[in-house]
Amino acid sequence: MNAEIIAVGSELLTPYRMDTNSLYLTEQLNQLGVEVIFKSVVGDNLRRLVAAAQHALYRSDIVIFSGGLGPTEDDLTRETVADLLGRKLKLNVAILDGIKARFRSFNREMPDINVRQAMVPEGAEALNNPRGTAPGLWIEDSAHMIALLPGPPRELKPLFLEEVLPRVARRVSAVRMFHRELRVTGLGESAVDQRIQPVYKRFADVNTTVLASPGEVQIHLRMWTEDAQLAQKNFAEIEQGFEIALTDRIFSRDGASLEEVVARLLTLNKATISAAESCTGGLLAQRLTSIAGSSSYFLGGVVCYSNEMKTAWADVPKELIEAKGAVSAEVAVALAEGIRRRVGSTLGMGITGIAGPGGGSEEKPVGTVHIAVASGGETKARAVRFMGDRDMIRGQASQMALDLVRMHFLYNGSAKRG
Amino acid sequence: MNAEIIAVGSELLTPYRMDTNSLYLTEQLNQLGVEVIFKSVVGDNLRRLVAAAQHALYRSDIVIFSGGLGPTEDDLTRETVADLLGRKLKLNVAILDGIKARFRSFNREMPDINVRQAMVPEGAEALNNPRGTAPGLWIEDSAHMIALLPGPPRELKPLFLEEVLPRVARRVSAVRMFHRELRVTGLGESAVDQRIQPVYKRFADVNTTVLASPGEVQIHLRMWTEDAQLAQKNFAEIEQGFEIALTDRIFSRDGASLEEVVARLLTLNKATISAAESCTGGLLAQRLTSIAGSSSYFLGGVVCYSNEMKTAWADVPKELIEAKGAVSAEVAVALAEGIRRRVGSTLGMGITGIAGPGGGSEEKPVGTVHIAVASGGETKARAVRFMGDRDMIRGQASQMALDLVRMHFLYNGSAKRG
Repeated sequence: MNAEIIAVGSELLTPYRMDTNSLYLTEQLNQLGVEVIFKSVVGDNLRRLVAAAQHALYRSDIVIFSGGLGPTEDDLTRETVADLLGRKLKLNVAILDGIKARFRSFNREMPDINVRQAMVPEGAEALNNPRGTAPGLWIEDSAHMIALLPGPPRELKPLFLEEVLPRVARRVSAVRMFHRELRVTGLGESAVDQRIQPVYKRFADVNTTVLASPGEVQIHLRMWTEDAQLAQKNFAEIEQGFEIALTDRIFSRDGASLEEVVARLLTLNKATISAAESCTGGLLAQRLTSIAGSSSYFLGGVVCYSNEMKTAWADVPKELIEAKGAVSAEVAVALAEGIRRRVGSTLGMGITGIAGPGGGSEEKPVGTVHIAVASGGETKARAVRFMGDRDMIRGQASQMALDLVRMHFLYNGSAKRG
Repeated sequence: MNAEIIAVGSELLTPYRMDTNSLYLTEQLNQLGVEVIFKSVVGDNLRRLVAAAQHALYRSDIVIFSGGLGPTEDDLTRETVADLLGRKLKLNVAILDGIKARFRSFNREMPDINVRQAMVPEGAEALNNPRGTAPGLWIEDSAHMIALLPGPPRELKPLFLEEVLPRVARRVSAVRMFHRELRVTGLGESAVDQRIQPVYKRFADVNTTVLASPGEVQIHLRMWTEDAQLAQKNFAEIEQGFEIALTDRIFSRDGASLEEVVARLLTLNKATISAAESCTGGLLAQRLTSIAGSSSYFLGGVVCYSNEMKTAWADVPKELIEAKGAVSAEVAVALAEGIRRRVGSTLGMGITGIAGPGGGSEEKPVGTVHIAVASGGETKARAVRFMGDRDMIRGQASQMALDLVRMHFLYNGSAKRG
């Protein structure tokens, strides 16, 4: 079975908004083994909406509309679909009462225009939407399943999950989509692809997608089958092959972010951490504390842009900065060791570098970053030169710092890897 | 004139990737007065690509394809467009030589399949793409302008800007889109809309769009006209009305982010800043240092999750924390004053709160945040309760902290507002 998504609303054709609902809808439909074969975005324009709906009904089994269910004359989805299917719109008194009650609960009278939201095509089911005034609509015949959903994601998502997905599931075959996601850091997209190609090429039934963002490569495995065991067996074999090809570069096997993996490792090892950051300006601390419950392992961090603060907060000797420069392996090490000692944490992180766009030199170009992790034993330091703009350099530096924490536990820690 | 954008590629129909190029293309086209009336995403499927291209050519003056120009048999855009227009594909030797040279520069031989990328429909112009192997293609007749562009944004954007936009500009009328963006903080979307509606309703020719994200509301004014003076006059009048309606809640009139506005104010006032953060975990420091050149005003920050670190780094008295609790106005004030004194900056920021999901109580529910700004004179503190998840609470708290800095300069500083 295949599906098509039509997002309705002129605001989605401006440079300021985009249809993100379709990603969610695609993910959910894929899991039922339904492939999304086309997506379109159409404004509040009757002629073009009719055309889009017509083509969709012609080529797709399932058509999902999002948006255009509001009370104003701009909102055309209801009328368009009813027209195309040759069904009359009728007032549904129960829906009208619900809308009126909703307005009353806000101490307001329902404006007359909202009556339009209670109009339902003959034979359509209204889908209860407690989070908004417009109900969803469901129309099903032997050839098609059609859902009309409100545009706001916080209304659309639960409505789809609770009301639409079960109705689709009843009709689709036993084929399901199985999915596995691996995440890799420290290797570029083409390097990852080159290494893993010999593995995934052997599995013609498994769809492999490699996606990159700065400091991270995601590998998505997807398989459509009725046979859960076969999917798991294939995934396990592929994963084994990937591990040989990528060694310790795989940090996540369940979609967890690197900060989540590090949070688990710290918790598992009952370890704590602190950070002294220069060029990342608090990004590492912010990522470490973005995880709920981070106060149990994150003890403290300092952002020491100036040399004075490096000395005041992390005891980096003034003479060391003068001798080696603020951006140097030695200062990264001193930051890591200093903050660890000051805070009394298991691990201490030090980052210093040049995020740009200014501040680079021939000897130390923009993108030069030194990262260190202190643990009481030997302090490990890495020197790198990252490519990209200020944001990308800072992002990659924080990613590598997190990866150094992961490597610490992988090779020195007591616990297994994340 | 109107335009339509077709994004080609099966990866854009997965839950993991979406077509973001169209936002950029829309923005650029809008500025020439060209409206985008339809967007679609189609996989690497000949039949559906033909249908999408057919409909687009039927209803739109300008059709922009992105993606599907690669060397493999999956890449169908070139062939499809040539077919639909009844033009033959011919090998372009100059392009082929360019592709071969590109491979040589990486010390590689060009694989045979890349010859496909040198095939050009009769009468089409090749658009030089120094950032990738596939050139763009431009086909123009009396009825249509058609551009075929590579999918990767870092190739598409410069190619569009340098090669496509000037060609479109030659043909469009003198109507241009004029745009003004105002940004507001500290008021919700509906409150903003309610206040400014009486103003913008008076200007029927100006399109007003209100968009919200946590802690921020953007107001976009757009007008399509030949008359630049008229647009500027309208915008000025509307802005004047908005200022009366929104008073000091407007922080940006040129699309600048709140951290950029604060950076400008600090620089203009030759002031420096430091931060002691608890619940925001470094987010405020990270935002302040995300701006190039921030080392001139950002002196240092501490992330003091634990009570010990609040005392050690910002001199918050132990007894104060015990008496009032770590999440209290008094501790926020002590953090701000302590970090300011320690660092010797003009301003000191203190943030303490409960970002959740755990840690809330009846008296201090999740979302409770105290923010203070110390300046040597009276320290200003704000108590708020933010709604949303951990990310939203942290985001809104950092936003309000930045806004307090802005307010400081607005009402106490020597310089004009940002």
